[in-house]
Amino acid sequence: MQSAAGVARYHAAMLPNPAPDVLISEVGPRDGLQSVSTTMATADKCRWIDALVAAGLREIEVASFVPARLLPQMADAAEVVRHALTLAAQRPGLTIMALVPNARGAEAAFSAGVHKITVPFSASEAHSLANVRKTRAQMLDELRNVAALRRDTAPGTALEVGLSTAFGCTLQGPVSEDDVIRLALDCVAAGVDEVGLSDTTGMANPSQVRRLFTRLRSELGDRAGAAHLHNTRGLGLANCLAAYEAGVRSFDSSLAGLGGCPYAPGASGNVVTEDLVFMFEAMGVRTGVDMERLLAARAPLQAGLPREPLHGMTPLAGLPKGWSPSTNTEIPVSP
Amino acid sequence: MQSAAGVARYHAAMLPNPAPDVLISEVGPRDGLQSVSTTMATADKCRWIDALVAAGLREIEVASFVPARLLPQMADAAEVVRHALTLAAQRPGLTIMALVPNARGAEAAFSAGVHKITVPFSASEAHSLANVRKTRAQMLDELRNVAALRRDTAPGTALEVGLSTAFGCTLQGPVSEDDVIRLALDCVAAGVDEVGLSDTTGMANPSQVRRLFTRLRSELGDRAGAAHLHNTRGLGLANCLAAYEAGVRSFDSSLAGLGGCPYAPGASGNVVTEDLVFMFEAMGVRTGVDMERLLAARAPLQAGLPREPLHGMTPLAGLPKGWSPSTNTEIPVSP
Repeated sequence: MQSAAGVARYHAAMLPNPAPDVLISEVGPRDGLQSVSTTMATADKCRWIDALVAAGLREIEVASFVPARLLPQMADAAEVVRHALTLAAQRPGLTIMALVPNARGAEAAFSAGVHKITVPFSASEAHSLANVRKTRAQMLDELRNVAALRRDTAPGTALEVGLSTAFGCTLQGPVSEDDVIRLALDCVAAGVDEVGLSDTTGMANPSQVRRLFTRLRSELGDRAGAAHLHNTRGLGLANCLAAYEAGVRSFDSSLAGLGGCPYAPGASGNVVTEDLVFMFEAMGVRTGVDMERLLAARAPLQAGLPREPLHGMTPLAGLPKGWSPSTNTEIPVSP
Repeated sequence: MQSAAGVARYHAAMLPNPAPDVLISEVGPRDGLQSVSTTMATADKCRWIDALVAAGLREIEVASFVPARLLPQMADAAEVVRHALTLAAQRPGLTIMALVPNARGAEAAFSAGVHKITVPFSASEAHSLANVRKTRAQMLDELRNVAALRRDTAPGTALEVGLSTAFGCTLQGPVSEDDVIRLALDCVAAGVDEVGLSDTTGMANPSQVRRLFTRLRSELGDRAGAAHLHNTRGLGLANCLAAYEAGVRSFDSSLAGLGGCPYAPGASGNVVTEDLVFMFEAMGVRTGVDMERLLAARAPLQAGLPREPLHGMTPLAGLPKGWSPSTNTEIPVSP
């Protein structure tokens, strides 16, 4: 006799393109490229984004709308968004995102036509002052301006906040979990659609991730957003697993682990997309991403940044013998 | 009001040296050193083991009793064991282990006076033939010989089996979970004290780890042994977390990730002890290991193997600001 869940999975497998169980949000073209000193040529960025889309990624953060004098790597943001939108026009499920630090950036991103913007908001006062020279209260005002602008000029565009340093801060040390939850509620009150949590500094551990995301989901309901976790101390995938077990279904990661403020040479910051997708697919949790094509997307990245080291263990080891995304789907982990 | 668990933790914290929540079994001096082509000098091995003991590790696999012509790196096994036993004489809680592939090796290990031996046993028939030129049935006979020898000559010595390729095999592909459990029961029937599971090939995923260890514990009770997991595809810590959640409390790992058959340059095989201890301590799961001294134990390893690359993310990033092993002990993850 087959269980109800088994029957549901059988029917899902019959669909031509079943919805994935988790959303992998690729942040490499924004988070990765703004972290390296070399500027990737626009044509190379576009070729890389083409390969990411071909691999089946359904959400890609392609640019950051910030002054070019601050981040020359992102000077071509509007042009990159324009290219990405032509891809999305052929794929209704594909979301093109950009990061904006303030209302001015949001205006530019809305003009460019992105589907979704994400605003970084420091949970730590010290990090907020150091990073955007604003207190958290001032940042909340800015967020209200962004939300008003969205309502008036781009009501169809999604607005997400990523609460950075949510798991600890290199400047102030531990960050109060009450503060994180209160700020998340403030962001929702300011008009934000979704609030995610970011382990900007690589200080999170699985217990804390489970605890804080459980609380976030309980307080925010379906406005609880993505887990943006780092691999700074090697805990990236363990933390993603803990977030998954807490019910999170949206994960930020970066191809080849590019970006995410690595502390030292050889260290990877962001969770590596290849390893994350491999973990989920091996567990029977569908990502909608094709592993082989994902590995192939490293080539245009490396071509555009020939001197940048690429991270990731699965690409080094290759896929295991006899492996297929469905090999281990029998009993997916329970949420 | 304080919970019962809170009171128990309070009292545990009052003890001068509370028992750790998990046992970290350091396999570097055996698994690591037999995987590198250079032979570390005996004096260097002893200095490294001194540092591991000083860091608080309570179980160390210090050598392999195999013919010196096959593994010249382990030719000094008896001498290294003798040194390690002098350390253990001053520390009643310290277990000195060695690997033995057969009865002849067991005889040598018992003579040397180790506290515990571990016998590798391939769950995959193809791997067994390739690795020890024995079928699994022949290996089971050998195990009975080892158990008889232990009973007759060294009844105080613990006897463990590590079921290698338990999560998949590079030669035959997937390994039947029924086979793994049946072999584990056969090993217990042959007289073994504990049977652990090894992800020799780095093919395990968290769902599978949870499922197989849950089943092992259900079938073997307190004869279910350690999780020996690899980081080949970056899932090492996520798999350790899954094993912990399935109730496993004993974990093999290797300082600097030395050893464990890496597939490619730059790839780490074994789970990195530094990252594993950091994860557990950050979660409030006590390992009994001092992080600072553990990081310091890399120096004698590097001194003894100057050209060998050391792995590990926590050593690169350092401990986070404001971090202490008890920072996050409030709500340990439930088993």
